[in-house]
Amino acid sequence: MNPSAAVLIIGNEVLSGRTADANLNHIARRLNDVGITLKEARVVKDVPESIVEAVNTLRKAYTYVFTTGGIGPTHDDITIPTIAKAFGVAVERNLQVEEKLKTNTGGNYTAATLRMADYPAGSRVIWHGEGFAPGCIMENVIIMAGQPHVMQVMLEAALPLLSQGTPMHTLQVDVWARESIIAEGLEAIQSRFADVEIGSYPYRHNGKAGTALVCRGESLPVVEKAFKEIKKLLEDLGAQTRAA
Amino acid sequence: MNPSAAVLIIGNEVLSGRTADANLNHIARRLNDVGITLKEARVVKDVPESIVEAVNTLRKAYTYVFTTGGIGPTHDDITIPTIAKAFGVAVERNLQVEEKLKTNTGGNYTAATLRMADYPAGSRVIWHGEGFAPGCIMENVIIMAGQPHVMQVMLEAALPLLSQGTPMHTLQVDVWARESIIAEGLEAIQSRFADVEIGSYPYRHNGKAGTALVCRGESLPVVEKAFKEIKKLLEDLGAQTRAA
Repeated sequence: MNPSAAVLIIGNEVLSGRTADANLNHIARRLNDVGITLKEARVVKDVPESIVEAVNTLRKAYTYVFTTGGIGPTHDDITIPTIAKAFGVAVERNLQVEEKLKTNTGGNYTAATLRMADYPAGSRVIWHGEGFAPGCIMENVIIMAGQPHVMQVMLEAALPLLSQGTPMHTLQVDVWARESIIAEGLEAIQSRFADVEIGSYPYRHNGKAGTALVCRGESLPVVEKAFKEIKKLLEDLGAQTRAA
Repeated sequence: MNPSAAVLIIGNEVLSGRTADANLNHIARRLNDVGITLKEARVVKDVPESIVEAVNTLRKAYTYVFTTGGIGPTHDDITIPTIAKAFGVAVERNLQVEEKLKTNTGGNYTAATLRMADYPAGSRVIWHGEGFAPGCIMENVIIMAGQPHVMQVMLEAALPLLSQGTPMHTLQVDVWARESIIAEGLEAIQSRFADVEIGSYPYRHNGKAGTALVCRGESLPVVEKAFKEIKKLLEDLGAQTRAA
């Protein structure tokens, strides 16, 4: 069975609508690639109690928790001390990271800059080659930045350090038919394939109603078998598939 | 105090990375406009236990819960029966909606089509003028579709039926300076304005580092006062603001 995961997005800006989160979809795709199954995501405010509760719930429920946001140098960056609190540990300065920050800034740093060298005691710094502070792994919690280009570097540096599983195989067909026409046959197929997740997603394209049908599973032959039955169903219904 | 809210996104496709959710940001902005404070969001799989647990936790914690996804005609659309289960009520067919679905489809409907006329017993249908099934309100839970254009219609139809509060006022300034330079002064200002949420968000534009500073609060004069202090801080630091 694949390792499981949750994403915890920490940031008032996502809940106020100021920022449209771009990290969840990226993390979801990358976890899918490496066979870690994303089961849940949460977005919480920059409020210590909310973060502590979410971290402690999710880290007990899933193999991994990936957090984004709140690890910069300003007053609203409370992720590190708050996750330390969730684990009941202190915050410690990492001297190697501190040195790197001093070098990176060409000596033009403040006390606030150096706060980015603070980590929960017992955590492991996730080194990467870029010119910004690294994220870290605290037990099963991977702590990353909120800025997408920074988060992506941290994620790539973290993934090789984690247990990975079987990448999910996905097959998709788009059809010019309403979901309701396909529903009955599709349900019958789903009932025969417990290990395949069959999804049905309506869309509109140039004012015309269509449905995307998606099969996902760990075993490619099984996914292919379910997919073949879906194609047969669409043929039997005389439904026209979109693109070849 | 403004009513509070959570968003619950129901859908395997968001967690698999197939679909990038577009609804959270839209709902966040609209709730902000009408003075409902969005405090949390969750994304869960199309799994009854996960949905029931999330709905029951969130509806007790917040004034409103807005759900998206899983209300179509296919086997993976389990939001209605599952939320009915969370409330311990049956699912009931709404005959007016059933009639509307028959008319909308020009008689070209199936048993699956008509399942979209099923609602948790005791819920209130949210009528709108469009050619698809309406969402509903079950006590404090607003149940909406996952397709963005459908969700948006349902949300606009629901908002006038809800308690609203004071819209949040937001003032923002972008500055060509690293967060670490501003951090100390900004923290001092935040400590004097408990009712203003001051956010600091780093960005890069054409390879240049900048910071967006955002003040949010219910009272415009108070937000303006905090914002004036931030402008003064930036002046004192000799930091150049972006655009006039």
